[in-house]
Order: sequence, then C-alpha cells, then structure tokens
Amino acid sequence: MLNIIELRRDLHQHPELGFTEYRTASIVVQTLKSLGYDVIYGQDAIDGESRRGLPSEKVLEESYQRALQHGADPDILAKMRGGYTGVVGILKGKHSGPTLAFRFDMDALPIVESKDDDHFPQQHEFVSHFPGNMHACAHDGHTTIGLGVAEALSQQDFTGTIKLIFQPAEEGVRGAYAMVEKGMLDDVDYLFCAHLGCEVPTGQLHGGTKGYLATTKLAAHFHGVASHAGATPEKGRNALLGAATALLNIHSIPRYSTGDTRINVGVLEGGTAANIIPEHARMIIETRSESEEVNSELEQRVRTIIEHSAGMHGLEYEVEIVGGAIPITCDEEMIQIAREEAVGIEGVHMIPEESAYSTGSEDASYMLRRVQENGGKATYMIIGGSNPAPHHHPKFDIEEAALPIGIEWFRRIALRILR
Amino acid sequence: MLNIIELRRDLHQHPELGFTEYRTASIVVQTLKSLGYDVIYGQDAIDGESRRGLPSEKVLEESYQRALQHGADPDILAKMRGGYTGVVGILKGKHSGPTLAFRFDMDALPIVESKDDDHFPQQHEFVSHFPGNMHACAHDGHTTIGLGVAEALSQQDFTGTIKLIFQPAEEGVRGAYAMVEKGMLDDVDYLFCAHLGCEVPTGQLHGGTKGYLATTKLAAHFHGVASHAGATPEKGRNALLGAATALLNIHSIPRYSTGDTRINVGVLEGGTAANIIPEHARMIIETRSESEEVNSELEQRVRTIIEHSAGMHGLEYEVEIVGGAIPITCDEEMIQIAREEAVGIEGVHMIPEESAYSTGSEDASYMLRRVQENGGKATYMIIGGSNPAPHHHPKFDIEEAALPIGIEWFRRIALRILR
Amino acid sequence: MLNIIELRRDLHQHPELGFTEYRTASIVVQTLKSLGYDVIYGQDAIDGESRRGLPSEKVLEESYQRALQHGADPDILAKMRGGYTGVVGILKGKHSGPTLAFRFDMDALPIVESKDDDHFPQQHEFVSHFPGNMHACAHDGHTTIGLGVAEALSQQDFTGTIKLIFQPAEEGVRGAYAMVEKGMLDDVDYLFCAHLGCEVPTGQLHGGTKGYLATTKLAAHFHGVASHAGATPEKGRNALLGAATALLNIHSIPRYSTGDTRINVGVLEGGTAANIIPEHARMIIETRSESEEVNSELEQRVRTIIEHSAGMHGLEYEVEIVGGAIPITCDEEMIQIAREEAVGIEGVHMIPEESAYSTGSEDASYMLRRVQENGGKATYMIIGGSNPAPHHHPKFDIEEAALPIGIEWFRRIALRILR
Amino acid sequence: MLNIIELRRDLHQHPELGFTEYRTASIVVQTLKSLGYDVIYGQDAIDGESRRGLPSEKVLEESYQRALQHGADPDILAKMRGGYTGVVGILKGKHSGPTLAFRFDMDALPIVESKDDDHFPQQHEFVSHFPGNMHACAHDGHTTIGLGVAEALSQQDFTGTIKLIFQPAEEGVRGAYAMVEKGMLDDVDYLFCAHLGCEVPTGQLHGGTKGYLATTKLAAHFHGVASHAGATPEKGRNALLGAATALLNIHSIPRYSTGDTRINVGVLEGGTAANIIPEHARMIIETRSESEEVNSELEQRVRTIIEHSAGMHGLEYEVEIVGGAIPITCDEEMIQIAREEAVGIEGVHMIPEESAYSTGSEDASYMLRRVQENGGKATYMIIGGSNPAPHHHPKFDIEEAALPIGIEWFRRIALRILR
Repeated sequence: MLNIIELRRDLHQHPELGFTEYRTASIVVQTLKSLGYDVIYGQDAIDGESRRGLPSEKVLEESYQRALQHGADPDILAKMRGGYTGVVGILKGKHSGPTLAFRFDMDALPIVESKDDDHFPQQHEFVSHFPGNMHACAHDGHTTIGLGVAEALSQQDFTGTIKLIFQPAEEGVRGAYAMVEKGMLDDVDYLFCAHLGCEVPTGQLHGGTKGYLATTKLAAHFHGVASHAGATPEKGRNALLGAATALLNIHSIPRYSTGDTRINVGVLEGGTAANIIPEHARMIIETRSESEEVNSELEQRVRTIIEHSAGMHGLEYEVEIVGGAIPITCDEEMIQIAREEAVGIEGVHMIPEESAYSTGSEDASYMLRRVQENGGKATYMIIGGSNPAPHHHPKFDIEEAALPIGIEWFRRIALRILR
Repeated sequence: MLNIIELRRDLHQHPELGFTEYRTASIVVQTLKSLGYDVIYGQDAIDGESRRGLPSEKVLEESYQRALQHGADPDILAKMRGGYTGVVGILKGKHSGPTLAFRFDMDALPIVESKDDDHFPQQHEFVSHFPGNMHACAHDGHTTIGLGVAEALSQQDFTGTIKLIFQPAEEGVRGAYAMVEKGMLDDVDYLFCAHLGCEVPTGQLHGGTKGYLATTKLAAHFHGVASHAGATPEKGRNALLGAATALLNIHSIPRYSTGDTRINVGVLEGGTAANIIPEHARMIIETRSESEEVNSELEQRVRTIIEHSAGMHGLEYEVEIVGGAIPITCDEEMIQIAREEAVGIEGVHMIPEESAYSTGSEDASYMLRRVQENGGKATYMIIGGSNPAPHHHPKFDIEEAALPIGIEWFRRIALRILR
Repeated sequence: MLNIIELRRDLHQHPELGFTEYRTASIVVQTLKSLGYDVIYGQDAIDGESRRGLPSEKVLEESYQRALQHGADPDILAKMRGGYTGVVGILKGKHSGPTLAFRFDMDALPIVESKDDDHFPQQHEFVSHFPGNMHACAHDGHTTIGLGVAEALSQQDFTGTIKLIFQPAEEGVRGAYAMVEKGMLDDVDYLFCAHLGCEVPTGQLHGGTKGYLATTKLAAHFHGVASHAGATPEKGRNALLGAATALLNIHSIPRYSTGDTRINVGVLEGGTAANIIPEHARMIIETRSESEEVNSELEQRVRTIIEHSAGMHGLEYEVEIVGGAIPITCDEEMIQIAREEAVGIEGVHMIPEESAYSTGSEDASYMLRRVQENGGKATYMIIGGSNPAPHHHPKFDIEEAALPIGIEWFRRIALRILR
Repeated sequence: MLNIIELRRDLHQHPELGFTEYRTASIVVQTLKSLGYDVIYGQDAIDGESRRGLPSEKVLEESYQRALQHGADPDILAKMRGGYTGVVGILKGKHSGPTLAFRFDMDALPIVESKDDDHFPQQHEFVSHFPGNMHACAHDGHTTIGLGVAEALSQQDFTGTIKLIFQPAEEGVRGAYAMVEKGMLDDVDYLFCAHLGCEVPTGQLHGGTKGYLATTKLAAHFHGVASHAGATPEKGRNALLGAATALLNIHSIPRYSTGDTRINVGVLEGGTAANIIPEHARMIIETRSESEEVNSELEQRVRTIIEHSAGMHGLEYEVEIVGGAIPITCDEEMIQIAREEAVGIEGVHMIPEESAYSTGSEDASYMLRRVQENGGKATYMIIGGSNPAPHHHPKFDIEEAALPIGIEWFRRIALRILR
C-alpha cells in the first residue's frame, strides 16, 4: 500500500519543470501499472505539435539524463524522451457505463526553495534536490493525491470507466492543450479537477471555482541583419528598433469598456555587442481578459503590432503561442455532487456554498471545455491546504493532512458517479 | 522702357506664395507680350498633376481674388486660375539655331517683413502690402532681372531661340518639376539659372555652383476611427498613435557611411478633443542626401515606416510628395562661358575660379537634369547682392545695384551662345 | 409671464460655447432682475484664475461682438467681458432659514446642427444661427428651466434663501470649479442639480445618479529650439520628439486592478515646416477613473511622463489643467425628497427607485462636493426628455414637454425644503 | 633564446578575453623577469576602479582556474587574480636619459575560430584550444613582438629607460585607460604603438595613422519594481518601458552638421517572465564621432535620455562607461623616425609617405594623449601582415614573416631614441 507522505516528500525532493517531468511521470506509470491500470503515455498521450513553450532540446536531454541518474525506469523513460511526459491511467468497471476523468498536474517551478528553519520541508529534510527548481504550487501533492485515488479505486467495484489524467507543464498554461488535442478527453462524460491550497485552510472544500481569466502567452522573434555600427550602419536591419517599437505599442493597446484586460511584455532580449547593429530580438508577451473573445482580439492586436514593427524595419519575424488558457465555467450539477460528497469526510469542517474565486489562469480549462463541448459535465474544485506562504513563494508548502482528504473526496465522487 | 527699380519695388510690395503668383505672373505675361514674345502660360506651361504641395482651393481662390483687387489683368488671370502660374516667353532670332533658356523664379515666403527703420524697403516705403508674406529670398529681383533681360534681348539680333522661363513655387522645391513635366525644357540646348545674394557681395559673380543636396518633402495622412475615449476606447483606431510611432522611427533611420544625410519630421498634427480617440493625423517629412540614390533610399524607408505605423494601428494612410529636388552638376563649358562674359560688366570686380558652395536644395535642378539628359548643357550661377541679413530673414534684402549687373550678364551670355 | 417654449427656442438658435455665453447670460441677468432677484455676475460670480480651458482672447472678443450684434444688453455685457459669464440670482424669503441652491448650465457645443427634415428644430425653424455651434446637450433646456423656476418661485412665500446658479462651460468640465472657488457655494445648505435627456423618456424622473467618473483634462506645451533641419540639425531641440515620446508613454500607463481607468491623448500639434526642427508642440490629455484617488495618480503619472519627455530632449514645458470633474455621491435624504416631490406632477408616470447610471463626467460634482464638505446635502437628478438622438449628436433634441415638468419639480422641491 | 614562431602559436592556442589574460600575462611576466627586466604587474600596474567593462566575478574566476590548469605559474597568477592582467617591464640603460615606451595588447575575441583546411592555424595545428575564443585581431602577434623586442633590447647598450607595456582588454577599448590612470605613462617621453595587419601587406610599414574615431561605450541599468502583471499591474515600475523609450530616443539623436557621428544601442535585455512587470533592464550603447567634443556631446545626450526615460517610469538607473577611446594624433617627428628606421630592415619593401587610415577606434589613444599632454611625443604605426581575412573574422590570420620585421623595427627605434 502506498505511503502517501513518503511519496509526496519524494516528489517534493525531485521537482521537474514543465515537459521534463520524466522521473515523476515514470513513477506514475509504474504505480498505475502495478495497480492494474491500462496506461497510455509518451507520444500516445500527448500531441507533440500542440505542446506550448517546449524547452530546448538541450534542456530536455539534460533533464532526461538527470531522471536516469535519479533512478527512473529506463524503459518507461525511453518512451517519454523528447518531452512527452503525459500519462493516462484507465480502469474499467465490471459493467459498461459513463467515463469519469480526474486530472492531476505534475510539474514544478523555477524557484529556489527556502532552507530556512521555519520551512516545513527543511525541518523534515525533504527540500528540493534539484537546485533552482521547487514544487511551490502543490503539484507534488496533486500527483500524490492522483496516485492515492488510483490505489483507492483499484479496490472498488463500479460501473463504467475511470480515467486518471496526469498532465505535464501546467505552469505557464502549456501542457493540458496538447493532451486535449491528442483526444484524451474525447470520450469523457464527467471531469473533476482540483487544486490544493489557494489560501483555503485545511478542512475546507469548494465544489467549484469562478473568475479564471482567458490568457495567451506569445513569444515573438525578430530577425534583422547585423552590420558594423561604425562602418556601415545603413546596411543593418535593426531587430531591437523593431522590438522596442512593438513593446511601446503593445502597451498602448486601449482599455476595453467591456471588461478588465491586461497586457504585458514580460521579456525583451536582443543584440550582441555595442558595435553591432542588433540582428535578433525576442519578446514574451501576455494578454488576459475576462472574455475569451476579447482575449483573442488582444492577441490579434499584439500580432498585428509585431508584424508591422518588423515590417517597418525590414525584419523577418515569427510569433508562437507559448501558453494559454480559457475561462472556466463549472457545471452546477457537478458542483453540487462535489459538495454533497464532501460531507462527512474526516477532517472536513467547512463546505462553502459559494465557489472559490481567483483571477489566475488554469489550462485545465481546455479539458473542461472539451468535455462540455461533447455534452459532458465538469467542475474545478479547491482542496484547502493551509499554505503558510503564497503560491510561487520560496516558502510555499501545504499541510499534509490535506492529502488524505483529497484522496477520499475523489474516491467518493467516483463511486457516486459510477455507482 | 522698363524702370527696373520701380518694377522690383512693386513686386516686393506684392509678394505671392507658391502657386498663387497670379499678380506677378500676370505682369510677366503682359510685359513679355508687349515686348513681342510669344507667351505660353496657364495650363499650357505647367502640368497640373505634377505640381507639388499645391495650396488648398480656398487659398488659391483667395489669392486669385486678391490679385484681381490689386490690378491684375482679368483675362490673363483667368487662364491661370487654379494655381497655373508658370510663364514661358519665346523669342526667335532671324536664323534658326540652338535654343537657349534662362530660368527665373517668382514666389515669396510666409514671413512677416520687418518694419524696422534700418530695413531698406521700410526706409523707401516698399515693404510688403500682403500681411504675412515677404520676398525674403530675392525672387522679386529674379523676376525683375528676367523682364529686364526680356527687354534687352528684344532689341538684339541673334540666331536660334530665346526661352525665358518664369517658374512658380521654388520655395519648398515644388514648381520646377511641373514645368519640366509639361515639356517646357525638352527643346532646350543651353540653360542658365542664377540666384541673387547668397552671402556674395555685389559685384562678385560665380559661373557655377556646387553642393546642392537631393531632397524629398513628403506629406503623410493617417486615417483611423474616432470613438469616445471614455465610453468605448476599444472601438477607436488611433491615428496619433500611428503618427507618433512613425515620427520616432523616422528619426531612427540610421546614418549612412556613404555620405551626409538628413531627416526631419517638421510637422505633426492630429486629433480634435480630449475625449475623442484621434481619427486623423498629418505629418510633413523631409529627407536630404548628397546622393540622389541615398535620398531615394531614405524616402523609401520613410514610406515603409509610415505604411507599417499605419498598419500597426489599423489605419488607412496616404503619402504624397509635396516637394523635391535633386543635386546640381554644372557643365564646365557653361561655367567658363559665364565667367568669360562676366568680364568687363560695369560694377563687377570679382569673378572667382571656384564654384559657389551651398548645402541648400534647388528645384531648378530638375530643369538642369532634363536639359543635360537631352544632351544639352547647363549651369547655375550666383549674382552677388550684398544681402544685409540671411535669406528667409525678416530683414533680408539685396542691393539693387545687383539688378543691372544680372541683366547685363544674361544679355551677354545670350549673345555669346546665339551669335 | 415667460413663454417657456419661445425662450428655449431663442436660446437654441443662439448657442454659445463655454465662457462665451455672453448673450445667454445677459438674458439670464435681465430676466432675474426683472423678477426681483439680486443678481451677482461677471467677475463677482466667477474666479478668473480658476477658469479652465479659457478660449483665446481673440475668440472671447469675437463672441462678445457677436452677442452685441444679436441684441444683448451692452451694459450687462460689459461686466462679463473677458469670459466672466457666470450668473447667480438670489431671492430671500420672508423669514431667515437655510439656503437652497439649484444649478443650471448654459453652454453649447462645437457641433454643426443637422438641417434634415426629421430634425425637430429644423421643422420648427429654430436651428442654430451660429454656424458650427449647437445646443446638443440640452443646456438650452436647462437654462430655460432655470428661468422658469425663477419666475415660479418669485411668486411664492418661503423661509430662507433661494440661490439660482447659472454656470458657464460645463462642456469640457471647465466652469463649475471657478464659481465654487469664488465662494458661490459656500453658504449653500442644500443643492439640487439636474440633467435633461440622458436616454430617459419624458415623464420619468430619477432622484439621484451614480457612476460619474473622476476626470482631468490637461494641456501640455513643449518648447524647444528651432533650427534648420538641413544646415544645423544638432542645434535644434525637437519639441515633436518630446511630444511623440510622451504620447506613446502616456498610452502605456498600466491598467489598474482597483477599477476602470481611461487615458487619451486627444490632440497633438507641433512644428511649422518640413525643413525646420519643430520648436513647439502642444498636447491635450484626458484621464478618467472611478476613483478620484486613482485619477489623481493617473494625472501625476501623465505629468511625470511629460516632465521627462521634455527633459529628455532639452525642452521647456508647462502643463495646465483645462478641465476636470470628480465623482458624484448623492445624499440619500435628498434623493428621497426629490422622489417624493415628483409624485403627482402632471405628465410624470415613472419614478424609479434606482439612481440613474452614467459613466460620463460632470463638473457640478465640484459644487456637490463643496456643499457636502460644509455639512450640506445635495443630489444630481435626471429629468427624462425622450431625446431622439444621443447627446452630442447633430440631431440631438429633447421633447419640450419635459420643460414644464422640470420647472414644477424644482418648484416643489424648493417649497418642501424652505417651507 | 625565444622561438618566436612557437611563442606566437602557443599564444594563439590559448586566447584569453579582456581582463582574463592570466596565462598570457604570466608568460609575459616570466619572460621579462628571465631577461632581467624589473616587472610591475597585478594591482601595481593597473587601476582597478578605472577598468571598463570588467567581466563578472564568475567569469574572472573561471578564467583564472583555466589558466592554472593550462600551466600558468601559480605565484605570478595569484598577484593578478580579480582581473589585474596588465604588465610593465622596465630596463634601465647604463646612463640616465629619456624614457621610451612601447605598448603591446594581449587580449583575444569571443569568436569561434575556423577549422577549415585553408586556415593556416588549422593546417599547422595551432587553432584555439579555448572554445569560443580566438586571436582574430593579431594580439597574439603583438605580444610575441613585445617579448621579442624585450629579448633584443636586453642585449644592447643604451642611455635612458625602456618601458614595455603589455595591456589587457584592448577589444572594446577598455584596458589602456586603467594603466594610464595608474600612472604607467606618466614618466614616458616617447611612445610607439603598432598594429599588425590592417589590410597592409607584409613588408609594408606605416610610421603613423589617421582617422581613429572618438568613441564611448556605455552600459545603462534600469531598476523598477516587479509586480504580477495580472493581479496588480499598477504596482509595477516597468524597466522595459523605460529602456524601450530610451532606445528609440537614443536612435533619434540628430545628425551633426559638423561631421560624421554614429549611435547604436547594441544590446537590450530585461524582464523575467510573461506575467511579471519587468523589474530590471540593461542596455549597451555606443557613440562615435570624428570629434572628441562632439562624442562627449553625444554621450551627454545619451545620458540625458537614459535619466529621463528612467524618471518617466519611476525607475532607478545607473550609467557606467564600459569602454572608450579618443582620436589619435601622431607626432610628425616620431613618424619620421619610424619611417627612417624602417629603411633597410630585411623583408621591408615599402614605406609609404602617407599615414595609414582607419575609422576604427583604439584605446592606445589614451596612452598617446597622456604622453603628449606631458610634453612627450608619440606615434601609432602599422606593421603590414598580409591578413587573408578581415580582422574579427573566423579565418583571420597574419603572415608570420611579419613578426621578425616588427621586432627589428622596434629595436632600431629604441636604439635611435636612446643612443
């Protein structure tokens, strides 16, 4: 039987960034197989072309080698090489019936974990072994809950099919879309997702969530012509002039009277030396809106500005989507089921009527959307976890008591839906 | 016989801006006719479509009415209505032979003339009667010399044909091109042009000139969509954002290692009210270069920047040429003839070997170019005139003693070429 | 007795822009005097230094002469010369008591009125006689109601003091502040303001209003150094470079998570000619926010950007406030009084419980604020007027049946407060 | 006795970037000592604060370790730790007399050396062992000549003092200034510098040089405030908005009518992630001019633009000089001595009367200036070296036959000056 705490701490010590969750996903594959699940993973679980913000081949390979060194199963690993780190475990009940999916995300963040004495993982000696990476958003807990649920359900009778979806690269809203595009959600009738923490105390459970913004993350690349800045400046095509013009004009996109919007150029890098007309530049841009339609319009405006900032200076350019999410609408029926099944779980003391509220972004949104488009129903829940520091903070943590609560909640929901 | 001083002072009192030289040109037509010249003028002398920087119809009409009120011949005037103010006087000699052209420009500047006591026209009571306009570049003198030469040659025997070209709108380098495009220079074998003043003292004559820069003057118009800035900013298409972006990027066009260049956005105007997204904007831009080819490249860069500044903000736009000139290359043979004929003119005390040097621009350049392209020869001379203040200054003037010198010089050159 | 319809149509025919309401204000002064009011006007009613966005002396004087020509009383007019067009009429009751003020605005807009057959003023032959100006925001109706109320109250017994405030230059939110600064509101215990139209049908009356935004209108002037763009560009200090930089950066001021904001650079003008480094430039900027504090922060950001855009290019600059308004908070007690007194007025069929909502801006806000700061109470009401076209539209109009309703409403409120 | 060819090839194989010439400088120190020179080096030879564009501590330390691994003397190395890689060798003659200095530069470039078969160092197996670094500007040859001269002069009688100055970080014009500021040139009466190659064939020697431009290289750092771009954009202070504004405005600095200028922003980098308001940005800027005064004016304009671009967005900033050079004026007397002493050197077949011409920049210029300011005399010579590819090219090389020519030339000049 799984030792939930040990598992969580092991994952916490080995935090892997988006699309490099080789070791984590290997453990998931191994565990699911040992529990009798059919397991789809590697290129079978994720559409390569639809992955957003994929790391460089160098980074992918270094992470791969690191996973090997840290004990991951080489055969399983081989199937995921190149950043194919999604896993789906399938368990069929005795009778045919609806398909119920749960989704768990596995990736960590590029944050240096605190080693202060008041940081729980430091006290208990399970801080990150991978310098610069940290599970600072509870995905170690999510993965643990996912495997805990896998175990719990493997010992139950039910009607229909269980699908446990372990997704890579939720940070930067990059990975869910590629599993959706691979069709992993196409046969799902009911989908439940959840997040641990979110400033909600342990023992409190929200059956639904509101407020997630549509967002698009774009990378723009400008390619000009280098030239000696003293000898022949007129022969250059200045990529930084194009990029700086784009930056100012992107920030000048107007406010919308129809609702809140956001625009940011988060990164701009270009040029090589004082005396060279800059040949290349690169920008990372983000748009957000309450409305998916307005967000698309913002994205289109950004693309237009980049196109013409490049054209103005005789530059070539590309724009690629490196992340994105859409708003989330939870089905009332699922929210109610979740709330009802929360009643009586040991340690649960509050089940608010109101949905939780967040202005963040979540790429599980694509999964909910696909299920709902096909006539299914879905919700996104919050599992309170008394986080002592905000998400993405070097001292972020969740109370481990929340883990068995989460497992039990998913188990009950599964049996309710598939009874 | 013409009273040169009176004529010059009358013209000085009635300064007319480019393409509105109705009164001036009427006097030229009348005088040439009275001296026996065939006179081509109005739409016969100038190609309407090729006029650059034409004033608005309102301005053209107001100037027309003013000329009527100030005694211009209504019949002559009628033929020039709408800004057709070029005149060509033709006189054929007894025998056929080459065609020799002289060119004189007639327009004034939008400058308020000084009424200080030390200003010669004020002392002698012939300052401008047309408020805000002034002959501050000696074109009143040029026109006077032109008519003086017309008179002097009407009494001479010669072989071939004399063509006296009186051009509008030299200021802003706008008018010569339209007379060239009408074909007025197509049959010319020899062309002499001259400028009075230019910081050269009375009695000094230069047979040629060097250094005139190629230049282009462009007007750009941006058309967006107005919208209430508070209620629906997202529905606007902001013409001023496009124009400001163009302005900064035009100034950022690189220096050229191949020689001096200049760029200026001289005017930017747009928008109507604080609370309206600006619908229209307008810019005036100037490029200059020692090299005609580089100037064309600068013009192309400006056009590209405007196109994409507009496209970036969803604007329509137009760019029109409102002025232009090319470099001047004087033929050595003509320079020598001019220098030789300067010898012995009363009042002339210096005939430098070197050509005069200026980094201004001159649209007579188009006339020289056309003659030279057809195998003819041409030069651009300087007639010293001891100007007490710089050109385009409210106290600019030229010493009237320079006028008979100029007339006599042109007369001698004509007889030398056409003997 | 006043003929309300005739009066309104006469005012409609003579629309005068902000601070040039010479004829309108003269009629107000004359009428109030004839009804027995003490009248304060000219420099006694308005603080000269506090007027925002005052027209040029030339415009002020031309409008003054026009008013003279259109029959305004020369003696009254003389006291208002120079743009002092505010009027206050004071009527004291038999016994001392509180001071109640009503405010009416008198100015028109720079809009060309429609002459289409379906436009009511055209059908009834009272369209604007002043080309380019139009009463397209119902201030002709406001002034008419004000004088109608003046007449109605002159025949009533009451306790305390009536103050009828006729303000100039509400458009552009420029005039109220100067009357407040002159102290006109300092002794006021109760203030009622109202607007006709606002997409509310005739017969519907709102006792209060919500949503008016804080706004600031700024004019920025940049002063550089002119220089010949070909000869000595390095000697110039380019005012348009500064202004274009300011424009782009003002538009780049971030969105606020605390509520809606707006930013616009509505006008930019600078430079004189293609070949001159631009010496001067001028911008008109507008900020808006739900929050007065955030609006101040936006104004401060705009000022900082202008300061440094100027400094960057060696320019001198000034920034002046040319308009402004603050949010409006209506006192619940006054709203209720207004709603109660609306009951039973002939023609009134609906008195909504909810306040009207608008995201415009109103400079009466300064008057409400001053009264409230002194412990008084105030509200801003809406008088439905079935406007067939939006405010500020060439076909804007209000149903004249709304005028007697408005007069009666104010009359009843006065007698309720001052009984 | 030194094997010149072996020495040059060893240096070529171990190219070290500016301020990391640990191994190279160690060899110089060792050799000079073995020849009997007094050697000043480390912090005694270079002013730490005056070093421009010093690499990071990490880079300095890694290079230091690399030098250790490649056989540099640990004791000598220890004195240079931290980027103190300048060396001065002093040899006194039998009698007191003037001080003569020669200057040699030692650093390499961040260029990947060609391994093509037609590249001489590849053919002879001495291409760079340090990946990404290359001696592509002949400084390996300069150092070799310097040591060859040291050896040649150690066996000669002379009057006065020889000073051999080996400077770091000439690339980017960063190192000479710090040796000047340490006083290394203060007692020098005569200074000769030289460059190999420069498109001049082997056997041709120029006694002087003309045309080197004044230049300044600046690094600007902008520091703002990070904030979540979705949650609280208004709390950020956006370093990239400031930097982009600076970039556009720096490029908009006007052309100068007084002579050629150049401006470039070669590098811009800022921001960390799509959803964070960028906190930091960094720019590298370069100005150039024929005139030192105009170059100072350009630098001042750049500084002003940076100051106000920062101020506009509430940013802190610093600007530091990371490189610079001034024009070079060679003393006619020294040019003649150099030309006279070139006569008769084996392999020399051409000694042009004209100085060589280059529009590059050289930081030896600071050394010439210091000597000349103190009343001394100096020149900058060219030693032809038949380079098959341009300087800074992956296939750059110099003909090794030029090395003994250079050594002999310096030897003869020394004996002429110090005889």
